[in-house]
Amino acid sequence: MKKLSPKTGLSPGSLVFVGHKKTDKTAIDVMVYSPTELREFRTENPEDFFTLKDSADISWIDIKGIHNTQQIAMIGEHFQIHPLVLEDILNTRQRPKIDFYDDYIFAVLKIISWNEKKKSIETEQISLIIGPNYVISFQEKEDDIFDPLRERIRKGKGRIRNMGSDYLAYAMLDITVDNYFLVLEGIGEHMEILEERLLKNPDKKILKEIYVFKRENLLLRKAVWPLRELISQLERSDISIIKKKTRPFLRDLYDHTIQVIDTVETNRDMTAGLLELYLSTMSNKTNEVMKVLTIIATIFIPLTFIAGVYGMNFDYMPELQWPWAYFAVMGLMALLALMMLWYFRRRKWL
Amino acid sequence: MKKLSPKTGLSPGSLVFVGHKKTDKTAIDVMVYSPTELREFRTENPEDFFTLKDSADISWIDIKGIHNTQQIAMIGEHFQIHPLVLEDILNTRQRPKIDFYDDYIFAVLKIISWNEKKKSIETEQISLIIGPNYVISFQEKEDDIFDPLRERIRKGKGRIRNMGSDYLAYAMLDITVDNYFLVLEGIGEHMEILEERLLKNPDKKILKEIYVFKRENLLLRKAVWPLRELISQLERSDISIIKKKTRPFLRDLYDHTIQVIDTVETNRDMTAGLLELYLSTMSNKTNEVMKVLTIIATIFIPLTFIAGVYGMNFDYMPELQWPWAYFAVMGLMALLALMMLWYFRRRKWL
Amino acid sequence: MKKLSPKTGLSPGSLVFVGHKKTDKTAIDVMVYSPTELREFRTENPEDFFTLKDSADISWIDIKGIHNTQQIAMIGEHFQIHPLVLEDILNTRQRPKIDFYDDYIFAVLKIISWNEKKKSIETEQISLIIGPNYVISFQEKEDDIFDPLRERIRKGKGRIRNMGSDYLAYAMLDITVDNYFLVLEGIGEHMEILEERLLKNPDKKILKEIYVFKRENLLLRKAVWPLRELISQLERSDISIIKKKTRPFLRDLYDHTIQVIDTVETNRDMTAGLLELYLSTMSNKTNEVMKVLTIIATIFIPLTFIAGVYGMNFDYMPELQWPWAYFAVMGLMALLALMMLWYFRRRKWL
Amino acid sequence: MKKLSPKTGLSPGSLVFVGHKKTDKTAIDVMVYSPTELREFRTENPEDFFTLKDSADISWIDIKGIHNTQQIAMIGEHFQIHPLVLEDILNTRQRPKIDFYDDYIFAVLKIISWNEKKKSIETEQISLIIGPNYVISFQEKEDDIFDPLRERIRKGKGRIRNMGSDYLAYAMLDITVDNYFLVLEGIGEHMEILEERLLKNPDKKILKEIYVFKRENLLLRKAVWPLRELISQLERSDISIIKKKTRPFLRDLYDHTIQVIDTVETNRDMTAGLLELYLSTMSNKTNEVMKVLTIIATIFIPLTFIAGVYGMNFDYMPELQWPWAYFAVMGLMALLALMMLWYFRRRKWL
Amino acid sequence: MKKLSPKTGLSPGSLVFVGHKKTDKTAIDVMVYSPTELREFRTENPEDFFTLKDSADISWIDIKGIHNTQQIAMIGEHFQIHPLVLEDILNTRQRPKIDFYDDYIFAVLKIISWNEKKKSIETEQISLIIGPNYVISFQEKEDDIFDPLRERIRKGKGRIRNMGSDYLAYAMLDITVDNYFLVLEGIGEHMEILEERLLKNPDKKILKEIYVFKRENLLLRKAVWPLRELISQLERSDISIIKKKTRPFLRDLYDHTIQVIDTVETNRDMTAGLLELYLSTMSNKTNEVMKVLTIIATIFIPLTFIAGVYGMNFDYMPELQWPWAYFAVMGLMALLALMMLWYFRRRKWL
Repeated sequence: MKKLSPKTGLSPGSLVFVGHKKTDKTAIDVMVYSPTELREFRTENPEDFFTLKDSADISWIDIKGIHNTQQIAMIGEHFQIHPLVLEDILNTRQRPKIDFYDDYIFAVLKIISWNEKKKSIETEQISLIIGPNYVISFQEKEDDIFDPLRERIRKGKGRIRNMGSDYLAYAMLDITVDNYFLVLEGIGEHMEILEERLLKNPDKKILKEIYVFKRENLLLRKAVWPLRELISQLERSDISIIKKKTRPFLRDLYDHTIQVIDTVETNRDMTAGLLELYLSTMSNKTNEVMKVLTIIATIFIPLTFIAGVYGMNFDYMPELQWPWAYFAVMGLMALLALMMLWYFRRRKWL
Repeated sequence: MKKLSPKTGLSPGSLVFVGHKKTDKTAIDVMVYSPTELREFRTENPEDFFTLKDSADISWIDIKGIHNTQQIAMIGEHFQIHPLVLEDILNTRQRPKIDFYDDYIFAVLKIISWNEKKKSIETEQISLIIGPNYVISFQEKEDDIFDPLRERIRKGKGRIRNMGSDYLAYAMLDITVDNYFLVLEGIGEHMEILEERLLKNPDKKILKEIYVFKRENLLLRKAVWPLRELISQLERSDISIIKKKTRPFLRDLYDHTIQVIDTVETNRDMTAGLLELYLSTMSNKTNEVMKVLTIIATIFIPLTFIAGVYGMNFDYMPELQWPWAYFAVMGLMALLALMMLWYFRRRKWL
Repeated sequence: MKKLSPKTGLSPGSLVFVGHKKTDKTAIDVMVYSPTELREFRTENPEDFFTLKDSADISWIDIKGIHNTQQIAMIGEHFQIHPLVLEDILNTRQRPKIDFYDDYIFAVLKIISWNEKKKSIETEQISLIIGPNYVISFQEKEDDIFDPLRERIRKGKGRIRNMGSDYLAYAMLDITVDNYFLVLEGIGEHMEILEERLLKNPDKKILKEIYVFKRENLLLRKAVWPLRELISQLERSDISIIKKKTRPFLRDLYDHTIQVIDTVETNRDMTAGLLELYLSTMSNKTNEVMKVLTIIATIFIPLTFIAGVYGMNFDYMPELQWPWAYFAVMGLMALLALMMLWYFRRRKWL
Repeated sequence: MKKLSPKTGLSPGSLVFVGHKKTDKTAIDVMVYSPTELREFRTENPEDFFTLKDSADISWIDIKGIHNTQQIAMIGEHFQIHPLVLEDILNTRQRPKIDFYDDYIFAVLKIISWNEKKKSIETEQISLIIGPNYVISFQEKEDDIFDPLRERIRKGKGRIRNMGSDYLAYAMLDITVDNYFLVLEGIGEHMEILEERLLKNPDKKILKEIYVFKRENLLLRKAVWPLRELISQLERSDISIIKKKTRPFLRDLYDHTIQVIDTVETNRDMTAGLLELYLSTMSNKTNEVMKVLTIIATIFIPLTFIAGVYGMNFDYMPELQWPWAYFAVMGLMALLALMMLWYFRRRKWL
Repeated sequence: MKKLSPKTGLSPGSLVFVGHKKTDKTAIDVMVYSPTELREFRTENPEDFFTLKDSADISWIDIKGIHNTQQIAMIGEHFQIHPLVLEDILNTRQRPKIDFYDDYIFAVLKIISWNEKKKSIETEQISLIIGPNYVISFQEKEDDIFDPLRERIRKGKGRIRNMGSDYLAYAMLDITVDNYFLVLEGIGEHMEILEERLLKNPDKKILKEIYVFKRENLLLRKAVWPLRELISQLERSDISIIKKKTRPFLRDLYDHTIQVIDTVETNRDMTAGLLELYLSTMSNKTNEVMKVLTIIATIFIPLTFIAGVYGMNFDYMPELQWPWAYFAVMGLMALLALMMLWYFRRRKWL
C-alpha cells in the first residue's frame, strides 16, 4: 500500500511510477511474426517499433521495466493510448481489470510465482495493450514466465503463428493462470507437510506458518477473483479484436480460472480447519499437563500431610510410642495412594 | 494438485495425461443397441468402432484407462472432437463442467465412492462425449459403478433400449448421483457413531476424525455444486441432442442433486456443531480436573501448614507440653477440613 | 439418510418404498363435497374412487400408508401420474418441492410436529397431487394434523365448501405451516427455560441440550426454506388449477412462511448466543476455581516453608533457643498472610 | 411466540386476537382535516366515523386497543377490508409487511421504543389501512409516539394539512423510523459505557449485558429489514393513492431506513467485537492468576523440600553437626530464590 | 449517533443542524473560472454569488461551516434546492448517497483522514450540489483536503479549466478517494508494526489496539461501500450534467473505489487473523506457564513427601538408626528426580 501517497492531489492522468523499482534499466523485446516469417530484436528506443502499428504482421512488444515514464509517454502518444490507461500502467498497485477502448483493449494482471527457495509467494504486475495486430506488454522486471511462449513462437509449434494478436494475448493469460496452478501446488505440498506435522507433533512454530499461509492465500484470492471477471468480459465482449476462433480458448481459460478459485476457496476452508485442529491439539496438551499435575499433587499432598502430623513435636502423642505405628502409617499411606490411583483410573485419567 | 506442472508452458490443446495412473492397460467396451437388438464387444483398437459414428443404433463406447494419449487422439480425430476437449479428458484434475459444441456435448463428472474397508472416500473422474447416437465415456480405471446400467441394457428392462443417447447419458448421471447418496449414507452412519462416542466418552482421536470428516465433506461439496449447474444447463439447453422426452428425467435428477447439496450443507453445519461440542466437552474436562486439584490442595495445604508449625523445634513452645494439645490440634484440623468441604458444596463443586 | 441404498442402479421410475414403515395397513379416506352435499367413506380398494376423477364435485382422497407400492401404481395409472412422481411419492427422503404437470400439480411437504412428551421434533412426509377437482394426499401414517380441516368441511364452516381443489390444497398447506408455529412455540419455551437455567446455574447437561436444539432447528430449516419457494411458485404459476380467488390466500401463506423462516433464523442466532454464553460462563467458572487455588496456595506455601525451616534439626540454630522466637515467627507468618490478602484485594481477586 | 396456538386449525380469516393485551378498554381518536379546517373527537362506536369514508376531507382514524374483535369486524365490513387483512391486524406477532389492494394499502409496522428506566427495548405493533382519503391505524395501547404529529396537524405547521392521506401515512412511518434512531442512540450510549467498563475493569456481569444487547439488536434487525422492503415497495408502487409529490419523501425515508440498518449491522459487528474482547480479557486474567501461582509455587516448593531434608531424624546426618551448616543452607535457599526470580524476569513474567 | 434526538417529531424538511460543531464562523470561498479567466473571492453573504447561477463560467462555491441554518436556507431558496436536500446537508450523520433532481445532483460523502499524531481516523461529511455550471460544496470545517485541486485550477494545470462542473465534482471525488488510500497506508503501516510486535513479544495492550483497528476499518467500510454505489450511479446516469468526456474518469474512479473496498475487506480478514494469532499466542503462553509449574511441582512434591516421612517422630523407625540410610535416601531422591526429568523430556516438555 505504501508509496501511493506521491500521487494524491495530482491531476488524473499524470504519469507517476508507483511501486518498488525491480530493475534499473529498461529493455524492449520485440517479436514480429507471420505464419511464415519471424523477426526478433531488442531495443531501448520506442521509435524502433513505431512502424509496427500499421504492419500486416503480428507483433509482440514486450517492455521490461516501467519506471521510465518518458518512454511510456512516447509509446502512449504514438499508439494513441488514453492518459488514464498510461497512469494505470505505471501504478503497480492495480487490481486486475479490463477496459475496452475503441481500437484496443487494456488489461492488468498479477503474475504470482512460487519462490521455491524462500517458500513464499512473489507478485508482479503486467499490463497488456491488445491492438488489432499487436500486443504491448508492460512488465516490472526483466526475467519473466513467458519464455516457453517465445520458444513456441520461434519454433512455430502449435497454432500461435497462424493466429492473431488476440490469441497471443490469450496465450499470455494462459501461462499466467498455469502459473497460479504451480503456486497452488507449492502451497498444497507445503500444507500437506504442515498437516502431517500438526497431527504428529504440533509445536508453536506451526501457528506462524498457518498465519503466513493464510495471508498468501488471501493474496492469491485478490489476484484470481478479478481475473475471472476479466476473462469472462473478454470472452463475452463483441469487440472485433477478439476473433471467433479464439473464444473457445478463452472459455477454456475461464474454466481454469474457476478451478483456481475453487482451490483457493478450499485452501481457505482447509486453513481454518488446520487452525482449529492446532488450537484443539494445544488445548488437549494443556489438559494433559494439568492431569499430570493433578495426579501427582492429589496423591502426595495428603500423604505429606500425614507425615507432617507425625512430625509434630507434642510431648503427648500416644501413637508415637506404639512399636508398630510406623509400619501402620506407612501401610495406610500406601493404601491411600492405591485408592487415589483407582479413582483416577475410573475417571479415565490414566 | 500435484503433477499439473508438466503442462505449464505447453501449447493449449497439447495431449498430456495429468493424474495418477490407476490401471496399466486400456480396454474399450462397446455396446450397440436398438429396441430389438444388442451387440457387445471389447477391443483395444479404436478403429473397430469408427463405423458406429454414422450407425442408426445407439452405441456406448466405454474407454477404460485414459493414459494412452495416442489412442485418445485417434478417437478425437475420427469423432471430430475439439483439441481442448481432448486435453480436458486427459486431465484428471478437472472441475465438473459441461460444454456444448455443434454436434456433441462434453461433460466432466466426479464419481465418488465410499470405500467401506478404509472408511474413506475415493474419487474418480469420468468424461462424457454425448453425440446424436453415441456416448463415449472416458474412465480412469476398469471396474466401475455402471454394471447395473449394463445389466438393464442387456435385459431390456425399463425404457433405456427405446430411448436415445441422451437418455443413456442421463442414466449414467443418475447412477453417479445415486452413488453420492451412498457416500452420504456412509458418512452419515460414521457421523452418528462419532456423535454417540462424543456424548459418551470423548477422547483425543475424535478430533482427527472430525477433521477428516470435514475434509471429505469438502471434497463432496466440490464435486456436487458444479454438477448442479451442469445438470441445470443440460436441461435448459436447446441443443437437439437432448430430446423433450428426456427433460423430465433431467429435472428429477436436478432435484436429486439439490437434495445431495442440502445434505452436504447440513453435514457441514453438523460437523461444526460436533467440533464445538468436542471442544466444550474437553474444556469441561479440564475444568473438572482443576476442581479436583483445587479441592485436594485447598483442604490439605492449610492442614500441612499447621502440622508444620507444631513440627518446629523451638525450645519454648508452650502448646507442646499441654497433654491434650495434640488432640485439640487434630480436632481443629478436622474442623477446618469440614468447613472447606461445606464451602465447596455451597459452591456446587462437589 | 439410511435405506436409500435399495434404489441405487434401478431404472428411474421404479416403484420402491424408501423410509421407515410407520404403519402396517393402509387406509384410504375419501371426502366428496359440493357447496350443498358431502359424502365420506373409507376404503382399501383404489377402484372405489376412480369415478371421482371426472366428477363435478370436489374430492379429497387421503391415502394413509404408502408402502403398498401396488396400490400406488394403480392410482398412478388411473390418474395418469408420471412414473417419476410416483417414485417420489414412495421416497420419504424427499426435499419439499413442487412440479407442475399439464393437468395436475405435484407437491411434497414435511409435516413437523412437536412431541410434548419426548420434548423433541417428529417429521413426516406428505405428497399432494392437486388436480382440477381433486386432491390426492399421500401420508406415511394414520393419525394426522388435518382433523380440524375435516371438521370444517363437515360443518361447512368458512368458505371451504364453496371453493375448489386449489383452496383445499391451500388449507392443507396452511395447517402444515400453522403446525410449524406450534413447533416454534415448543422450541421457544424450551429455549427460554434453557436460557434461565444457563444464567442461574449452568451445568454440563446444558451443552448437550443446546446441541440437540441446534439440530432440531436445522431440521426445521431444511423443511421451511424449500416450502417458501414452493408456495411462491404456486402463487405465481399461471396454471388454471389455481384460481384467482385463491391467490390472496397463498400470498398470506407465503407471509406466514417468511415469518417461520425469520424465527428459525433468529433461533439460529440465539442458539449461537447461548453457546457463547455457556462457554464464557464455564470459562469464568474455571477462572474462579483457579483463583481459589491460587489464593490458598500463595498464602500457605510460603508459611509452610517458614515452618519447615524451623523444623530443621541442625545442632546450631541460634533462633531456636530464644524464648520469644516462636511467638515472633508466628507473628511474622500472620503478617505475611495479611499482606497476601491485601495484595489479592488490590487485584480484585477477593 | 406464545399464544399463537389458539388459531391453529381455524379457517383462514377467522378473527382471533393473538398477543398480550396491553390495555383494557379501546378508544378511537379521529382527526378530520382539510387545509383550512380541523375536527377532532374521541369515540368508542365505529359507526361515528363511517361517513368519513366518502368525505372530501382527510381523516385519521386511530384505534387504540385491538382486542375487541367485534369492533374490528364492524370497521372491516364498512371499509370493505379483506378478511385476511383483519386477521393480520388482530395478530400482534406479524412481521412488518405491505399488501396492496384495489382501493387501499395495508401495512404492518413495529414501533420500538427505548425504555430509559428499564434500559431495555419495548415493541409494539401498529397496522395501517391507507385509503384514498383516510388512514386507519390500529395500535395495541393508548399512549403512543405520534403526539408531535397530532400537534403538527393541529397547528397546521409544515405541509401536512395541504397533503393527502399518503403524506399522513408517510409522516407516521417517518416518526416510527425516527424512533429507531432514538433506540439506537440509547443502545449506542449503553454500549459505549459497556466498552469503557470492559477496557477498565471487566467483570462477570458484562457477559450477560453483552448477551442482552445482542438480543435487542436482533429484535431491531427483525423490525427494520422488512421495513426497508416495505418502504421501497411503497415508493415504487404505481397505486394512485401514493401521489407523485409524496414520493421524494418516501425516498428520503428509505435512505433513513438504510441508515438504521447500517447502524444495526455495525452494532452487530461491534457486539461480536466486544464479546471477543471480553473473552480475551478474561483469558488474560486467568493467565495472570496462573503466573502468580506458578511463581510462588516454583520458588517455595524446592525451598520447602530442602527444609524438609534437614528436618529428617536420621541418627547419622553429618551436616547437622557442622556449626555453620544452618547459615549455609539458609544462604543456599536465598540464592535459589534469586535465581528463580531472575528466570521469571527473563521470561517476562514479572 | 448522539444528538439525532432534537429532530424527532419535527416536520420533514425542517432545517436543524445535527452534529458536533467543528468551527465557529462560516466562510464561503468562491472560484469562478473559464479556460482563460479565473476569479476568486471569499464572502459571508450568499447574495454575493447568486448571479453565478446563470453565468457562462464554471463556479465552485465552497461553504465552510454548515451550522448557520439561515444562510443554508437562503442558498437553498435561490438555487431551488428541495427542502429534504437542505435537511440532509445539515445532518452530518448521513450515509454517503446520491440523489438526482431535475436540474442538479445531490451527493453526500465522507472524508476520512488519517491523523498521524493521534494515530487514528477522523471523519468529516461533505455534501455536493452539482448543477449544470456550478458545484456547491458544504463542509463542516475550514481546513480541507482540496488545496491541491485549488492549486490546479489556479495554475490551469491538467484539463480542469477546460471541462465543466461535472469534472470539477469528479476531481473532488477523486481527491476524497485518494485520501482513503492515504488512510489505508496509515492503517497498513500500523498493522505491520502490530503484526511484528505480536510475532516477537505479544503483550496485553495489543488486544486493545486490534480492537481499535477493527473499529476504524468498520468506519472506513461504512464510508466506502455506499460510495461505490454512488459513483456507479453517477457514471451510469443519463442526466445531461454528466458529459460523455467525463465518464471514462468516473469509470477509473470506480475502479479505485473497488480497490479501496478490496483492501478494506482484506484488512478485515487480516484483523481477524491477527486476533486469532494473538489468542493462540496467549494460550501458548498459559500452556508454558502450566508446564513450568507442573514440572517443578511434580519433581519436588514426591521428594518433600519422602523427607516428611523421615521427619516423623515415631519411637521405633528402624531405618533411622542405619548409618548409611541418610545417604541412601538422598540417592533415592536424586534418582527419582532424574526419572521425572527423563519422563518430561520424553513428553517433549523440556
